[in-house]
Amino acid sequence: MNPAIVLFGHGARNAEYAEPFRRIRAAMLASDPQAQVEIGFLELSQPTLEDAIAALQARGARRIRVVPIFFAPGKHVLKDLPERAAAAMERHAGLEIELAEAVGTVPEVIAAMAAYALAQ
Amino acid sequence: MNPAIVLFGHGARNAEYAEPFRRIRAAMLASDPQAQVEIGFLELSQPTLEDAIAALQARGARRIRVVPIFFAPGKHVLKDLPERAAAAMERHAGLEIELAEAVGTVPEVIAAMAAYALAQ
Repeated sequence: MNPAIVLFGHGARNAEYAEPFRRIRAAMLASDPQAQVEIGFLELSQPTLEDAIAALQARGARRIRVVPIFFAPGKHVLKDLPERAAAAMERHAGLEIELAEAVGTVPEVIAAMAAYALAQ
Repeated sequence: MNPAIVLFGHGARNAEYAEPFRRIRAAMLASDPQAQVEIGFLELSQPTLEDAIAALQARGARRIRVVPIFFAPGKHVLKDLPERAAAAMERHAGLEIELAEAVGTVPEVIAAMAAYALAQ
C-alpha cells in the first residue's frame, strides 16, 4: 500500500497563504483520487504537521511520507522536521514516517520555476 | 528589451540553502543565454535583494522583474518585497521594478510539485 502523504509547509499569519498548498493537494487528488494527502504546517498556519499525521493515522495510515514544500533545505527541513517526525513516531506506536527531499530540489520543479521566471 | 530578473528568495543560515536558487538560475541561462538573472535574498543569505538590483542596474538594466521564489504570498511577498522594491526605485533613478506573482501560485509549478509528491 502506498504511504499516506503530508505536504509540509512553513505557515504564515494570513489565511490565503494556505491556498497554494490546497492547490497542490487538489492536483494530487485529481491525478490519484485514492491518494491520502493532508497538509501540515510548521508554524502559524493550521493544521499543524502533528494534526496532519494524527488525522492520517486515525484513518488507518501505517506509513506516512512527509514531502517538504520548501525550496531548499534550511533549518526547518534539516532539523525541525526530523525532530518532529521522530516525536510523532514515538507518540503513534507502529507508525512509520519517511521524509522526502524538499520539493524545490526536484529537477522538474526547478524547470517549471525557470520557465515561469523567464516568461515576460 | 526584456527586463532583467531577480530571483527573490527567503534566505537561511546554511550555505547550501542557496544551491536550488543557483539551479533555477542555471536552468534559465541554459534556456536563454542572454537572460540577465541574479539571485537576491530577503535575509540571512547573500547576496541581498538590494545587491542583486544594484548589480543588474550597474550592468545597464533599466527594467527589473522580481520573481518571488515563495510558495505562497505571505508577509514577505505582500509587504516586505513591495517596500524594498519601492526603496530601491527611489535609490536608483530611472529604474523600473515590477513584481511577479509568487512562483508557487503558477499552475505548471503546482503540477510539477504534485507529481513529485505522488511519486513513491
